[in-house]
Amino acid sequence: MEVINVKDKLAKVKDHWSPKIICQLNGQQIKIAKVKGEFVWHHHELEDELFYVLEGEIEIQFEDHAITIRAGEMAVVPKGIKHKPVAIEEASILLFEPAETLHTGGIEHQLRQDDQHWI
Amino acid sequence: MEVINVKDKLAKVKDHWSPKIICQLNGQQIKIAKVKGEFVWHHHELEDELFYVLEGEIEIQFEDHAITIRAGEMAVVPKGIKHKPVAIEEASILLFEPAETLHTGGIEHQLRQDDQHWI
Repeated sequence: MEVINVKDKLAKVKDHWSPKIICQLNGQQIKIAKVKGEFVWHHHELEDELFYVLEGEIEIQFEDHAITIRAGEMAVVPKGIKHKPVAIEEASILLFEPAETLHTGGIEHQLRQDDQHWI
Repeated sequence: MEVINVKDKLAKVKDHWSPKIICQLNGQQIKIAKVKGEFVWHHHELEDELFYVLEGEIEIQFEDHAITIRAGEMAVVPKGIKHKPVAIEEASILLFEPAETLHTGGIEHQLRQDDQHWI
């Protein structure tokens, strides 16, 4: 039974907006990512999406407002809601989502990754 | 869309071994708990169980060994595996689990709580 050190895992993450799986349970995955700059506008048809900020802060833009999530804070973006994550400075986030979730919601984009990468 | 500050939520938790829900998504819940002392031996028939330690450290005892999980570390106890969480000093943990999970795995015990308590 592996004990996973989240900071050690984060130290191995080099790319921005490229979630890495650190753990799987009950058909869900825990992923970590480093983010900086703007991600793509997208929504998830079927999945709610959790953003738990570990370091730094991110903004999530919606069509009519935005929220800021700082280190130690989390928020859930309900399925179907169009949103764009943005990080002015580099931030580290933890995601908890169904194993089948695609991070762009399936939208074609240069940042899209279909593979499931463990770290 | 609520931004949830985990430390603020933890500050409201008074009892040990009494998980409180802070967030729900995709049929899963995120719970936080303060723990100190020994919990009850139990297993979950159907659910894997994640322990993510936020503050302090916990030990999880199994029938033939034990693991220590420190702040910033997580581990998954697969379904069906008998285990007993122990914390010598008070620790704070975060759990990700299906909304229907009972924390004692259904075992009758004075620490058992069937209600779903949000905080």
